[in-house]
Amino acid sequence: MSHRTRVRVRYGETDQMGVCYHGSYVAYVECGRTEFMRENGIHYRAMEEEGLALAVVELRLRYLRPARYDDEVLVETRLVEATGVQVRFEYHLFRLDGAAETLLAEGHTLLACVGKDGRPRRITSPWKERIAALESASSAARGA
Amino acid sequence: MSHRTRVRVRYGETDQMGVCYHGSYVAYVECGRTEFMRENGIHYRAMEEEGLALAVVELRLRYLRPARYDDEVLVETRLVEATGVQVRFEYHLFRLDGAAETLLAEGHTLLACVGKDGRPRRITSPWKERIAALESASSAARGA
Amino acid sequence: MSHRTRVRVRYGETDQMGVCYHGSYVAYVECGRTEFMRENGIHYRAMEEEGLALAVVELRLRYLRPARYDDEVLVETRLVEATGVQVRFEYHLFRLDGAAETLLAEGHTLLACVGKDGRPRRITSPWKERIAALESASSAARGA
Amino acid sequence: MSHRTRVRVRYGETDQMGVCYHGSYVAYVECGRTEFMRENGIHYRAMEEEGLALAVVELRLRYLRPARYDDEVLVETRLVEATGVQVRFEYHLFRLDGAAETLLAEGHTLLACVGKDGRPRRITSPWKERIAALESASSAARGA
Repeated sequence: MSHRTRVRVRYGETDQMGVCYHGSYVAYVECGRTEFMRENGIHYRAMEEEGLALAVVELRLRYLRPARYDDEVLVETRLVEATGVQVRFEYHLFRLDGAAETLLAEGHTLLACVGKDGRPRRITSPWKERIAALESASSAARGA
Repeated sequence: MSHRTRVRVRYGETDQMGVCYHGSYVAYVECGRTEFMRENGIHYRAMEEEGLALAVVELRLRYLRPARYDDEVLVETRLVEATGVQVRFEYHLFRLDGAAETLLAEGHTLLACVGKDGRPRRITSPWKERIAALESASSAARGA
Repeated sequence: MSHRTRVRVRYGETDQMGVCYHGSYVAYVECGRTEFMRENGIHYRAMEEEGLALAVVELRLRYLRPARYDDEVLVETRLVEATGVQVRFEYHLFRLDGAAETLLAEGHTLLACVGKDGRPRRITSPWKERIAALESASSAARGA
Repeated sequence: MSHRTRVRVRYGETDQMGVCYHGSYVAYVECGRTEFMRENGIHYRAMEEEGLALAVVELRLRYLRPARYDDEVLVETRLVEATGVQVRFEYHLFRLDGAAETLLAEGHTLLACVGKDGRPRRITSPWKERIAALESASSAARGA
């Protein structure tokens, strides 16, 4: 139960080390998460318009190999845990080198559901059910 | 009637050309404008909290020499024209090289006053008077 | 003789006005330019690896209507003028609203060819011919 | 053995949730680390010019309370561990609310020393000694 999104490294996302700046990966995992949710019926924009926002409360990234300018990075996203108020996503970022895949980075984000006032609130229907479905599909995939 | 703000080039603001990415200057002129206004009694955060926002409707930058990582860039800001609905700022960005100043870039932004709904609205008191005072001071300085 | 690239507005590219931050468009026109060149045989990464870089020396953007989070923005790019040392691109950014297209912003960038040392240099073959071909196709299109 | 740097939240660093975008903190901890090192005789720009770069290999951030536009954020940086090839920094980010300090976020980065070719290399004199001095001062402070 995972999903892959492609993101191309922009020029402004590189730094003078000649590689993709490590902070740029924050946007890449966000793209991965957004497309993963969209593909599974969770349109984040609509969710936020209804007053339910997911705020990042924890971010962790490990960088193994650099991505370079103009590389197409594959972001593999999994939803690994959901409670009534928080959702945890895991990410693996790859680069395709011909037939081979090179793991560039991995990480996770923990998101908390908040209302328009920024205060915690419970995830409500129909988002709750859709997130739960993704979580159980993900557990099943790992149990297999 | 101008103002100078210092901004240090961050690592993430460089690109693989080994210099400050040209898009980073958008933030630098914003810092210049914000501090210039603050120093002259126009606290932009307060203004926005009262429902008056200044939206950038035009941006122009000319790049003469590159800024480099960790350079302290001086942003010189002038308010050159104000109507009841728009304000135009001009910027000159320098680097101090010992006693000499090297001009790195210059540009302007045109900002339109909008309400919370994003629609145009007139700049109201006390912001109107403070902006007008800056404009006339600026004209006087140029006329001298 | 133009080209269209789609860019989706990321969450981190919005600001507290609730719309896409004006500085984010710098990356969007860069995406447009890069894909336009790629489609026409000018692979910018390869060009830079051969020691020819295109540095932005002028940037101008006019903002007509805001782009919003998760919007797909169409970036239409034209190469409007090329000399032996500089290339000028024009951009029009649209949003698709059903069958209609809404113009969000327009602008141009002027790029100068520089070597690895950052000094101006002439654009050399085969890039020179490919850029010239794009320029004449563009003129013909406008003359028609 | 810690250090505090002030960073002001820029408009472009906010997002449509009306707070500082979580990815912006990557730049803030970088500012904290750079100024902490500078104050202790480790001028990172000079170090990199000599061919020694510190590449971020791990990043972790926990977000407790939002920073807002125009807030002055205090970044408290500590060097908590150094080996011959890696350095670990810890960060606490505060906002001053009158006399009180509100903890906004905390995190760490692990940096690996690499050469101009991007390959791991040992940290050499005089940087090695300066980093070691900071590490022992930090341990002593915690032991006290």
